[in-house]
This record gives sequence, structure tokens and C-alpha cells, in this order.
Amino acid sequence: MMKALSVVPVLLMSVLSLPALAAPPSGPLTLMPVPAHVQRQEGALVLRSTFLVETSANANDRLRDAIARAVTRIDSLADLRHAGTGVTPATPLHVEIEHPADAVQAVDEDESYKLDVSASGIRITAPNELGAMHALQTLIQLVQPAGDHYEISAVSIQDAPRFPWRGLLIDCGRHFEPIDVLKRNIDALAAVKMNVFHWHLTEDQGFRIESELYPELTAKGSDGLFYTQEQARNLVAYARARGVRVVPEFEMPGHSSAWLVAYPELASGTVPDGIRREFGVSNYAIDPTRDETYTFIARFLGEMATVFPDEYVHIGGDESPATDWKTNPRILAFMRAHNLKDNAALQAYFNTRVLEILKGLHKHMIGWDEVLTPGLPKDVVVQSWRGSESLAKGAQLGYPGILSAPYYLDHMDPAGKVYLADPVPSDSSLTPAERARVLGGEVTMWGEHVSARNIDSRIWPRTAAIAERLWSPAEVRDVPDMYRRLGPVSVQLEALGLTHLTSEDAGLRAMAHSTQIGPLRTFAQAFAPVSFGERYHVQRTDQLTPLDGFVDAVVPDPPSQYWLESTMKRFLADPRADVADRDALLAKFAEWKQSIPAVRLLMKTSPQLAAMSQRADDLEHVLSDAETAVHHLSQGTAVSPAWKQQAVARLESFTKPRPETLVHFVGAAPLRSLLEAASK
Amino acid sequence: MMKALSVVPVLLMSVLSLPALAAPPSGPLTLMPVPAHVQRQEGALVLRSTFLVETSANANDRLRDAIARAVTRIDSLADLRHAGTGVTPATPLHVEIEHPADAVQAVDEDESYKLDVSASGIRITAPNELGAMHALQTLIQLVQPAGDHYEISAVSIQDAPRFPWRGLLIDCGRHFEPIDVLKRNIDALAAVKMNVFHWHLTEDQGFRIESELYPELTAKGSDGLFYTQEQARNLVAYARARGVRVVPEFEMPGHSSAWLVAYPELASGTVPDGIRREFGVSNYAIDPTRDETYTFIARFLGEMATVFPDEYVHIGGDESPATDWKTNPRILAFMRAHNLKDNAALQAYFNTRVLEILKGLHKHMIGWDEVLTPGLPKDVVVQSWRGSESLAKGAQLGYPGILSAPYYLDHMDPAGKVYLADPVPSDSSLTPAERARVLGGEVTMWGEHVSARNIDSRIWPRTAAIAERLWSPAEVRDVPDMYRRLGPVSVQLEALGLTHLTSEDAGLRAMAHSTQIGPLRTFAQAFAPVSFGERYHVQRTDQLTPLDGFVDAVVPDPPSQYWLESTMKRFLADPRADVADRDALLAKFAEWKQSIPAVRLLMKTSPQLAAMSQRADDLEHVLSDAETAVHHLSQGTAVSPAWKQQAVARLESFTKPRPETLVHFVGAAPLRSLLEAASK
Repeated sequence: MMKALSVVPVLLMSVLSLPALAAPPSGPLTLMPVPAHVQRQEGALVLRSTFLVETSANANDRLRDAIARAVTRIDSLADLRHAGTGVTPATPLHVEIEHPADAVQAVDEDESYKLDVSASGIRITAPNELGAMHALQTLIQLVQPAGDHYEISAVSIQDAPRFPWRGLLIDCGRHFEPIDVLKRNIDALAAVKMNVFHWHLTEDQGFRIESELYPELTAKGSDGLFYTQEQARNLVAYARARGVRVVPEFEMPGHSSAWLVAYPELASGTVPDGIRREFGVSNYAIDPTRDETYTFIARFLGEMATVFPDEYVHIGGDESPATDWKTNPRILAFMRAHNLKDNAALQAYFNTRVLEILKGLHKHMIGWDEVLTPGLPKDVVVQSWRGSESLAKGAQLGYPGILSAPYYLDHMDPAGKVYLADPVPSDSSLTPAERARVLGGEVTMWGEHVSARNIDSRIWPRTAAIAERLWSPAEVRDVPDMYRRLGPVSVQLEALGLTHLTSEDAGLRAMAHSTQIGPLRTFAQAFAPVSFGERYHVQRTDQLTPLDGFVDAVVPDPPSQYWLESTMKRFLADPRADVADRDALLAKFAEWKQSIPAVRLLMKTSPQLAAMSQRADDLEHVLSDAETAVHHLSQGTAVSPAWKQQAVARLESFTKPRPETLVHFVGAAPLRSLLEAASK
Repeated sequence: MMKALSVVPVLLMSVLSLPALAAPPSGPLTLMPVPAHVQRQEGALVLRSTFLVETSANANDRLRDAIARAVTRIDSLADLRHAGTGVTPATPLHVEIEHPADAVQAVDEDESYKLDVSASGIRITAPNELGAMHALQTLIQLVQPAGDHYEISAVSIQDAPRFPWRGLLIDCGRHFEPIDVLKRNIDALAAVKMNVFHWHLTEDQGFRIESELYPELTAKGSDGLFYTQEQARNLVAYARARGVRVVPEFEMPGHSSAWLVAYPELASGTVPDGIRREFGVSNYAIDPTRDETYTFIARFLGEMATVFPDEYVHIGGDESPATDWKTNPRILAFMRAHNLKDNAALQAYFNTRVLEILKGLHKHMIGWDEVLTPGLPKDVVVQSWRGSESLAKGAQLGYPGILSAPYYLDHMDPAGKVYLADPVPSDSSLTPAERARVLGGEVTMWGEHVSARNIDSRIWPRTAAIAERLWSPAEVRDVPDMYRRLGPVSVQLEALGLTHLTSEDAGLRAMAHSTQIGPLRTFAQAFAPVSFGERYHVQRTDQLTPLDGFVDAVVPDPPSQYWLESTMKRFLADPRADVADRDALLAKFAEWKQSIPAVRLLMKTSPQLAAMSQRADDLEHVLSDAETAVHHLSQGTAVSPAWKQQAVARLESFTKPRPETLVHFVGAAPLRSLLEAASK
């Protein structure tokens, strides 16, 4: 039977993926995030040539440029001919705003819009260009194939975000990311209606922003990898053009080795020898007791205020054990003199001084959980890396907050899991006033294990699911429907220049030293990287660890994972009758097993792949067990307890993290359910 | 029989592709271009940690930066740990140069180098850093897997280029290419030891370089798509750091609509309404009779000389019918007064005036074939788009020349063909002195049908084969060996950021609106784009034609093409005994046929793919015919004449260019041989 089935994979996979295709106009829409209100109408707007744009008299360059970009995207997406080259008249696209948006984008700006598509044209209205830009992104996602052309279903959309703060943090400290990487990610943020790029600019491992006042910060603290102020200003302008705020973060008093390498006089005692290569919490800290420290910070932040116009500045504030504070006699004396009983109190003192500086610059302060200490003024925003309960506590105390904990991309959680994490869960006991303090959330892309080559694949498409959580009504929580839309949205992001769909192949080719990676690609789809913590624990990575292994190539939550989970779930619901899913599963197992001999050949000339040798053996055994279990279930017979015990042990051993591998099998959970079911 | 075979493709493909894998250290090297002299030694240098670099006292930043880049590349390629993280001592890398290279890289600079690798370390010596940089590129290509680590075979290499001018032209006029595209292509040029980036900056369809003296050139002539002088200077520095000269081209007097749109007073009579969108030769021309014209050109070229330090400036000079010159009374009077009997004479007059200007700027002039008119000074370089005979004629007349004709990438010729085109063929009748005037060659990437998304796939890897022609000894002409090395080299280019191996998938996903493109990918490998001429003829493309169709996604000379040709050749040599190749061919045909039903499903929701419907039908028929022919041959029976006639007719019909498709079947030639053989 396996023989006959083994021809099926190539065909089956695409048949099975049909639900992920763009639906015909009469089918469901593939919008992500789902708008607040959508009303489908009869008919559709047929797209045969490009657009004739009409804007209201008060349109500005920001709006006009956004329209031009959207029109170019749709022209490309829908293969539209330009006026003059065809006989079809251009499609009217009418965009009207009431007034221009703020000169510096504010947290509380109105981002709502109305979008109406009829057979005769498109009409967008919004209070300001922010809303109009969101409408344009919706419009792009509405374009769908229809026979020999593209069209947009007639629809009436009224939309506005649930939360005003929808961000992505990229840590450019631990590994530097070139400007191009940031630009394409900002394009992607705008595409899914996110509005904050949180630029984590300083870390123990690197100081990444040029200071003209303190040039040693990058001269000694960056390995030459930093952003010039001109580049940063350009990026801010690039983001603004797309409705995205840029919130810079300068970590203090901890995570500050790079400051201290450059200016040892800032240190609390011990001074690092050089840029810190190890990851994890460091003991180095800025000295909070000297006035010169504040003069330095004031001048530095003053300079940065000329680069970053946003109303908010993030000062980090997390993970600062600052052991020197407990031993340096001068610091201890200062604490006694100021009645500061411990490190937390001293850090609160430090935060207050920095807050004064920021106030002088007309900036609001943001910090991580730890900044929330008694007496903290109520306009400081607390970003929670500890979770939604910590966030709720802050809100109850009167602090505005942003949720980040469940959105840590380096946990490598599947989209279906991060999607359901809500800044204000439905069972939240917060009052309406307290809820209003929850500004939104931020996805965090920490930099320990990402390079410019694979960072996109860690961020996307999972961040699109979180974008929906932060924008769409709380009731939008249908995981299968989210996955249905995630594929096409992922492809749309790729068209913006993102590399999340290509970096895996590139990585596999690099380690195979060959362009012929068909079976290796199949094999790789059985694996996903383990979480940051698991990898760090077994590998003790540091900043100089090469990021070119199998774990760096494979992607979190590959499409095979959800496919396997959902297919298995359907099969187990009715294993004797569900022939289609049985065959699909067997075909998948066969496809994976067939890939192994070819991958073994590659292992001979690839040290990186050779490290997967045991994993390949184990995969083969586990898949054979799975085949046996499927056959039993489909024939209505049970496996023996002894066999089951053995198979479960093999699966457990396979799915346990191991030092040499760093990747986990994407089918672990469904196969566990399968073995359970087969023994009943 | 087909049923049993159809399980084979996934496995077979990779077994068959083994020759393309990096060879073990004892096997052949995968260097491209092949060095002039290579002596293999006993043993190998084991790579277990990164390098300890020692440079001679006269090392400069250009060299040090190049070493740093190479070390980073090898660290990544060979997954090397850094000193301090392991116990293995660092590998000594000694680099010595005699003197720094010229401040402005000259055509005749010494690019030779010596590279010695032993079990104990690496030693590079060169007259200047240009040679040392080439040595570093060779070093990168020498790194090969060996069990659980990487190593470099002990080797002694003495190397120098055959031709001093080895260039790539990118036409940024017809379609603008962002700076990033140019940067990564310059990285790739350096990787295969090419040394000229010919920047085609002005065209009828766009004026792409900022002039502060004449700002209207870009304000009116570029659609806002142009390079600032700062960007251009940065690119020149970027290229210089990699041993690549930047030769700018400003087309005159023809291909100049964009100049005239901006400054109508330069025109010979008729003035274009706006930027010319149509491709092909235009009649607009700069007026060569007015002194103001030369004042303009002198000031403009003077300004450009501050941006482009290279000794050469390309003035185009091709394809200028200049119909106004035959009708404008003032121009006709000027011709009579100066005794200029026709347009060619007037253009020669124009060239002489421009040449004077360039001499004043201490620049040499280059132009296309047409500039070669009687009386042209002997230091003008003629770039031949007409072919090697035209080039030889120029050399005999005393002109230095560069060959381009056979290296037109938009002809979409396979690497195996362009590889064999030699600037000085072995049967050349040129004298040694005349041969010395052949400076080398330039690959040309004309811009009609390329976008930033697919341009890399048109340039690479084919240009690597031409790079070898221009660098390596003339005797290096083994096509199978070139293809053996082309795969691994292509993967190395990808690691530099090139997208030539990923753009096809991205294009297919965009038109499938799905991430699941397995069968479509297989199907696409059966096709390659037709030549520029064929496509232009049927589609009448212009600058605004969308470049998002199936033809824009598929790549010229896909690996399947050479694989099919070489496999078929082996099979036909002994069809009854060669079971392995028979099975491989049948597996390939089966794989392609199997992909078709899934592709048909995608066609329902993709207008771009729906255009391939007839092509898919035909492919199926032609492959079935091929299967029949293979079976007959392997059993020693002949097909009937009637059947053969029908099959040939089907193949002919399939391989004839058709308006709706724009792609050709990569198996046309081998299948023709197959049908011939089967009927004997």
C-alpha cells in the first residue's frame, strides 16, 4: 500500500493547500487584520487597467506618495496595463481626508477609515491620511483573481483599530541589522496596519546609533556596525511616510556595557574590557550617583531628540542587578545619604532623574516592567515582558501599558498560539478606565539568534497574526480562519521585499553547497527551531557564534506544522471513514521518509547537515510508527500495549531537545495524539 | 512501468545532481574562473576556528577591509568558531603586497597574485591589493567540506587575468535599479574576478543621475527615479573597495529623449512630449551644430568627472538615425558649410567635439561600434555590439576594443553557449599587436524586461561563465566541467545577497497567491523565457508593461535544461544498456507530467498562470511522446514513421514561439534528438 501511495505527495500537497489560496470573489475575503465592520455588496469592480486617482484638495505629499505606492502594488499584483496601452478606461480611485495628520504622529491619532468599492470605482474617506493609508492596505488585500483578470468584490468597510499602540521591536544591539532590513520590515508593518517600530539601539553587545557629542559610543562600542544620524533620520522619514512611529530605546542603567566600554567614567565600578560577546544579564551598570552621569545622559538624549521626533523615548530599565551598587563604598554612601534602601530604590532614583531630563525635552518615558516602582509618575508607559497580569496590575495602579510577553518571537511559538494572547483577555477584571490604559502590544524580535539573512523568517508571517490581535475586534479569534488567510498575506509581504519565504532555501543551499535541494527542502519542513532558551541552554551561544546551521535555516511554525495538526485532528475524529485525510497523512509521511536517503548523501559533504544524522534516523522510525498507527486506526484494529509503549518512547526520545540538533519535530503533538488513539 | 517509476523523481534528482556538489578535498576543485596555474599538493589545511591575519607593513585599508570581508565569508561558509570559544588555534592567513594599487584603478594595473595553502596556513602575495583581493576570492572558493569540518586542499596557485577589461553593463535607464541591486551585483562581480561595472545611466526612457548644473535632467526625465551624486559617489567607493571600476555611460547624440524632455533647446528639431515609454530606436537626437550644445555637454561632463573618477567615459553613440538631421534646414546648411556629406559624417564631427571635451577632462572616450568612423583618434575604445569580427576589424585599424555582442544576457542563451564565445577566437587571424588591442569583454544587461525583482536571475549565474572566459586561459573550454562548477558558485553568489536563486519562487508565489508552490515550481523548471527580441515582437512591451508574468518568473538556462541535454546525450549513445539514464529521464518526464494537474488547479485562481493553459496541454503530450520514444529505444524497437511525423509535428508546434506564452520548453533540442533516434 505504501508503494502505491508514495506517488501522491506532490499532487496531494497542492490539493490540500487549496483552502489557503485566494478565494474567488464570491468566497471569503482574505483580509488581515480583519476590519471592524465589513459589508459585502452585490457585484464587483473589474480591474483591467490602472487607476485614475482623485484626491481631496487638502491631500498632502504623504497621502499622495502612499497612494502612488498602493497603485504600483496593485498594478503589479493584478498585472494591470497602463492607460494608453489598452482600451479599458482607468478605474476611479477617490481618496478624501478631512485634515492632515499631526506633524509628529501621536499615540492617540484617529486611524479610522471608510472604504467603499462598487462596480464603478473606489472611494476612501478618512479623518486624516493615517486612516487613508490603512484603507489603501485593505484595498491591496481585497484584490482577487477572477478568471482571466482580477477584481475587487463590492464592499463597504468601516474600520478603526482596537488598540492605538501596535508595535514591533527589533533588537539591533546584539546583532546589527542593515537599514534595508529595517525598511522592508517597516513596509511589512504598514501592510498589516501596525504603527510603531521600536528601535532597540543599545545593548551590552553593541551601541548602534551615532552620537556626535559622544563619538566613542560607536567608535569603541559597535565594531563599526552602527547607524549614522542621517540614516536614522531617513528611516524615521521612511516610517512616517508609512504611518509608522519610530520609538528609540537607549538601555540604562543595565544592558549598558557598550556605553561603559566607550566612556568608563560612566561605570559604577567595574569596567568591561571590551564589547561584551556573551548574552544574558550582565552586572555592569551606569553609575546613578554622579551628577556627571546625568549631564552625559541629558546631552546625549538632547542630541537624540533631534534625530527621533516621537513623543516617547524608551530607557530600557530592565535586568540590572548592578552588583557594583552593593559594593562600591561611594555608591553605598550615596544610598545612605539619600535614604535609598536597596538597588531598586537607587534605580527608581535614577529613573526619576532621567525622567526629569526627558520632561525637559518634552518627551514621555517608557520602560520595561522594572521601572514601575512606587512614586513613578503616571505618564510613564510600562512595557510588560512579564505578562498580561503584570500589565493589568500596572493599569490598576494608573499606568499606561504595552503588552510584550506573549509576543516574544524567539520563543518560536506557532502563530496560532501568539494569535490568541490578548492584551485585555475576555475574562479581564479591569474596569473600562483601566482597560483604556492598555495602549496595545509590541512584538519583540530579540537579536541573539538572528542575522540579516534569517530575521524576516522569525518575524513573518507570525507578526501578521499578532497585528490582527491588536487591530481587530476582540471576538476575532478563529484560528483556522487565521491560518487560511496567513498564506496569501505572507505572499503579499514577500512582494514588499521580505525574505521570510526564501531564506530557508538559501540557508539549505549554502550548507548543501548545491542548487539541487528538493529532498532537503522536504526534510527541513519536518523541523522548526527550538526556543531561544532551549538553544542558548545547550549551545551557550554568544555574539560571535556562527548563525549558519540547520537551526538557522528552518523556520518557526512552518506550514507543515498546522497542516499536520489540523489534518490529524480531522482524521482522528473518524479514522475509519475519513479516507481523504488518512491518505493525505500517509502521503506526507511517505514524502518525508523518501527525502531521507537523499539528505544522507548531502550529509557526506556538509558538516552542518551531518549534525542532523541522528535526527534523520529518528524521523524515519517515528514516521514508520505513525504509518502503522494510521493503518490500525483506519482498519479499526488496536495496536498492542507493548508496541504503543515502544512507539511512545521513541517519539518522546525524538522530541526531547538534544545538544546536537537544536530543532524540534513539527509533528510531535499530532503523533502523540495518534499513538494514543491507536491504542484504544 | 510508469507507475513504478513515478516514485523515483524526488530521490533521483538529488542522486543525479551529486556531480554538482562540492567535491571532497581529494576531488576536483570548484574554482571559477579557473586560475592560470594550479598545483595541487599533498595534505590539507583543516579549518576549525577563524583566522589570524598578518599583513605586510604597507597594507592599506582597502586590503584590510577586503580581508575582513573574506574572513567573515569563510567563517560563515565553514561555520567557524571564533578564537576564545574553542581550543583550536586560529589559522594563519598571511597577506603581503609590494605596493599600493593606483589611486584611480587603471585598465592596465597588475592583477596577478600567488596563493599558497599548506597544512599550516595560507600565504598570499601580490604586487598590489588588486591581486590580493582576487586571491581572497579564490581562497573562499577553495573551502570544501570534509567530514565533520571544512578544509582547504594544499595548493599553490599563480594567477593573472587573460584580459584586463572584464565588465558588466547594467542598463538603469529603461528600468531603474535601486542602489542595493547594484551593490550586490558588484559584490558578485568581485567574487568572479570581474573588474568593471559599466553604469548605463541615460536612456530614452530615463535620465538616472543627478546633475546640480542641469537639475531638469532628472526633474523632468526620470519619473523621480534617479541616483543622487552622493549615492553615485558611494557606489564608486563601494566598487573600488572591491577592485571594480565604475565606467559611466551618458548616451549621445541618440537614445537621448530624456535629455531633450528636460532641455528642449538641445534637440535637433522635434522634441519629445515626455519621457519615451516605447522601446526601440528613436529618431530624437541632440543637435550637433550649435555651440551651446557643446557648452552644455562640457559643463555636464565636467560635473560628472567629479563623481566618476575612472579614466573612461562612455558616450554611447549607437543607433541614432536622427531624422531631423536630414530635414532641419539649419542643420543641413551646417553640414554643407562643414563639408559633412551625411549623418554619419555629422555624428563623427559631434564625436570629435565631445572627444575634445573629454580630453580636457583627462578622460578617454568609449563608444559603441558606430563611433568608429574615419579619422577617429586611436585612443578611443570601441565597444562591439556587432560581434567579434567587427571587434577584430577595429583592432586591425588600431583601435582598442571590448566585445559585448555574444554576451547579451537578454538573448537568454544558455551558459554553455555564451561561455564558448571568445573575444579572440583560437582561429583569429589577428597579429599579436592587434590581439593586444582587444581589452576584453562586457556582459550587457539591457533593461527592457527586467525589474529589481528578477534582474539577478538574468545576470547570474551565466555571467560567472563569461567571467571565466575573460579571466582564464583560452584553452579552458570544457562545458561539462563549467556546469559542474556553476552550481556551487551560484550558491556562493547567493550568500552575497543575490536573489537569482529565489526570485523564481517568489514570482510563482505571487501569481499563485499561495505559499504552496511545489508542483508549480516543478512545472516552471520545464520553461525558460524567450529572448528579448521574441518577446518584444509578440508583446510590444514598453516601459510601463507589468513584469509580473510567468515569463518574468522563470529563469534562462535553468539547471533542468543542461541536465536534460547531457542525460539525453548519454542515453542516446547507448539506449539499450544505459538503464540509469533511461530511468532518470523517465522519472523527470513523470515528475513534470505529475505537476500538471496541480498547476491546472492554480490556473483557476491565477490569470497569469491561466495564460499557460495551452502550454501545459502541449507539455503533457510532448512528454508522453518522449516516454514512448524512450521505451522503444530501450527495447530496441523503432517507432513508426507516421507516429514519428506526428510527434515531431507536436514538438515543433510546442516549441514555436506563441504570442500568449513568451516561454520556451527547455527540452526542445534533446526531445528532437530523441524522436530522431527513436525512428531509426
